[in-house]
Amino acid sequence: VTGALASELADVVGPAHVLTARDVVAGYEVDWTGRWHGRASLVVRPGTAEEVAAVLRACAARPIPVVAQGGNTGLVGGAVPFDAVVLSTTRLSELQPVDEGSAQMTVGAGVTLSALQQHAEGAGLAFAVDLAARDTATVGGMVATNAGGLHVLRHGPMRAQVAGLEAVLPDGRVISRLAGLLKDNTGYDLSGLLVGSEGTLAIVTSARLRLVPPPAARVTALLGVSGTEEAVARTASVWRAGIGLEAAELFYDDGLALVCSMTGLAPPFGRRRPPAYLLLECAGPQDPTAALAELVADAADSAVAGDARGRAALWAYRERHTEAIGAIGVPHKLDVSVPPGVLPRFAAEARRLIEAAGARAVLFGHVADGNLHVNVVGPDPEDNTLDGAVLRAAVRHGGTISAEHGIGRAKTPWLELSRSPAELATMTAIKAAFDPAGLLNPGVLLPGPPAG
Amino acid sequence: VTGALASELADVVGPAHVLTARDVVAGYEVDWTGRWHGRASLVVRPGTAEEVAAVLRACAARPIPVVAQGGNTGLVGGAVPFDAVVLSTTRLSELQPVDEGSAQMTVGAGVTLSALQQHAEGAGLAFAVDLAARDTATVGGMVATNAGGLHVLRHGPMRAQVAGLEAVLPDGRVISRLAGLLKDNTGYDLSGLLVGSEGTLAIVTSARLRLVPPPAARVTALLGVSGTEEAVARTASVWRAGIGLEAAELFYDDGLALVCSMTGLAPPFGRRRPPAYLLLECAGPQDPTAALAELVADAADSAVAGDARGRAALWAYRERHTEAIGAIGVPHKLDVSVPPGVLPRFAAEARRLIEAAGARAVLFGHVADGNLHVNVVGPDPEDNTLDGAVLRAAVRHGGTISAEHGIGRAKTPWLELSRSPAELATMTAIKAAFDPAGLLNPGVLLPGPPAG
Repeated sequence: VTGALASELADVVGPAHVLTARDVVAGYEVDWTGRWHGRASLVVRPGTAEEVAAVLRACAARPIPVVAQGGNTGLVGGAVPFDAVVLSTTRLSELQPVDEGSAQMTVGAGVTLSALQQHAEGAGLAFAVDLAARDTATVGGMVATNAGGLHVLRHGPMRAQVAGLEAVLPDGRVISRLAGLLKDNTGYDLSGLLVGSEGTLAIVTSARLRLVPPPAARVTALLGVSGTEEAVARTASVWRAGIGLEAAELFYDDGLALVCSMTGLAPPFGRRRPPAYLLLECAGPQDPTAALAELVADAADSAVAGDARGRAALWAYRERHTEAIGAIGVPHKLDVSVPPGVLPRFAAEARRLIEAAGARAVLFGHVADGNLHVNVVGPDPEDNTLDGAVLRAAVRHGGTISAEHGIGRAKTPWLELSRSPAELATMTAIKAAFDPAGLLNPGVLLPGPPAG
Repeated sequence: VTGALASELADVVGPAHVLTARDVVAGYEVDWTGRWHGRASLVVRPGTAEEVAAVLRACAARPIPVVAQGGNTGLVGGAVPFDAVVLSTTRLSELQPVDEGSAQMTVGAGVTLSALQQHAEGAGLAFAVDLAARDTATVGGMVATNAGGLHVLRHGPMRAQVAGLEAVLPDGRVISRLAGLLKDNTGYDLSGLLVGSEGTLAIVTSARLRLVPPPAARVTALLGVSGTEEAVARTASVWRAGIGLEAAELFYDDGLALVCSMTGLAPPFGRRRPPAYLLLECAGPQDPTAALAELVADAADSAVAGDARGRAALWAYRERHTEAIGAIGVPHKLDVSVPPGVLPRFAAEARRLIEAAGARAVLFGHVADGNLHVNVVGPDPEDNTLDGAVLRAAVRHGGTISAEHGIGRAKTPWLELSRSPAELATMTAIKAAFDPAGLLNPGVLLPGPPAG
């Protein structure tokens, strides 16, 4: 079967873009975390929306499931094939000229975040979403997962940047909403619905993206705080001052100590060791430095930097958490959010739960979003008991089991904690409306019908 | 049938809230424009989501269609009943306390825009959407139509303000996403899909709304410009300066002359009569007056005002267009948008088309959104030939047949100009997923299945 399909797809995309050699295909069968290992029938790399459509028609005719894969940097196993065709989007890499009149641009789904950032900067504009995987993560994957990142507080997640999408339905029909109209009330928002749908409804081939004016000035402050509560209160007061708060990152003394011991960084405030740290960043057309400095003047420990080097030195304490945690074990990464006001109580409970189970908790997060990255080091990687307990606690506090990573395969067992039976039934009905045969990414996000 | 239904619904909501007297019901059968006259079986006014659910179950059991109606200020006939039950949302008027931690609030679908604006202001915050019908338009209607208004350029339309919804499905099941989480990637964005769905998928009962910090300073400038092209270029340069551009309104010399003659206002620049006018408004934490004044210093004619009275005097030239147009006839109001860069060509073509048909064109609009309100005075109110020609021209220029008013009943004949067969089929499949019996607002937005 694979041979006949490979031959048919080679006619569509050219033989060079149908990969069947086991060692080559193997690279597409495992996810970034190394937790998920699947099996692909083959990998096909279409170069246009029309080729994507022809690939989907060929797969639907058999039928064989299709999994779209971009940079493969997802953290929940959402792009791992299980006896499916991998449709790699990396050749959908067109960067159309920036439309300066509307401050938008149309880019292919396979364009990387850093490529589109550079493209926008070339026109004197900026793209509002940024995240650490910028050199690998693609537009298509960021759309499919509604990627969050460092500036959600200011500019919203990926959904807020999408002015429209081009996507191919499972039967090969193409939907195209790339005009980039700021106002367009002509029925259901299909583009918005595809954002965050994890490749289960259609395959995104192009995106029309909003751009923002680049800030003239940017300033970063690192404060020592008494705990989560003070971090939440200070973040709210800086947000209310309206001075362009873009990031409000929280971490704790034990995480900082781990970072310093694993990386050799000197602690920020010498021997003074406050219980928690709050990193604030503001940006805007006018220099926010004086206003931010005044707002944090009453903190016992603080450092403020407006130059790139000084800012990077402050960010390092937060950004190097991931590498420091990885150095002591394979963590279970639980990405949850709760209403910001509840963050103090939830963070304390998550820590208690993890430590009571004899594991180690390293917590950090985005205060204004109520988004806490709960890293659990110590338990058996195959044992999900503690994961479930932490996710249940987040939901009990009015939160969600997935803030920015999505559901993928990793969190389907707990989806019913965050979505009611009526919502699950509605999602299943929407899935059937787009993909009645269940061919797109079956088993991801929602339980799929039996393949074939 | 109506008697038995009325009695059953009276058991749900109380007899006082089931309206059957012909003269009372008549007020719910005609729309704000007076163009659409329908017929309601009865009017039911539930006070809670549970009562809405019971009403929908009772109607589904018969079955009889249901049309949700809020302030009834829509402009496209989207809330007019045709042998249906009117579900009036005005008793869903709960205003929950503002959550200052998340800068959000939960309000009932029947709350008016002005009531929610005042409620937010009481907590030192602001609601980002504003429009002229603020004393009557309700949250539910604004959600159903994805209302736009005066600040879309800065803050986006209603969709951007909705952090989540509570809604009742046609079979009475309730979906509730009111936690207001800024990050929540757990499957399809049902709340976002309901925004702009015009009451065809579910009935919204509550909304969780985002609030913004109120600006410390606000300044308005009115410029004389040489035409649409200069208006577009100047708007882009002020937007790029990043000084909080919130409104960029365009109107023309003939419209201004009409306003002055109908209202008695003195023209803004004495005897000088530039071909077009651009009204710009900026707001932010720092006073944008100096920056805006510098950006418009090279205009031959300009007026800048920072006080409420002076600003209102400048806005009057724009806002009194509607009343001045109404004084000379019953206009066909065509609300279209095109990419902003194309606005000059489209505005000229729309004017040519209308004048060639012997009718009078009065144009005004929101430059940055590419949104032009095309008022046609003169043709037979029942003759849609010219409407179709203008809508076709908008689409030919890459635009849409409805910028902010929606489709309703008025624009269904032209929906296929803006949505492809694949999109229409997908919308129809989504409608069937939510409302398989076609009971919610049949005939609005999409052609409905035969009722009953």
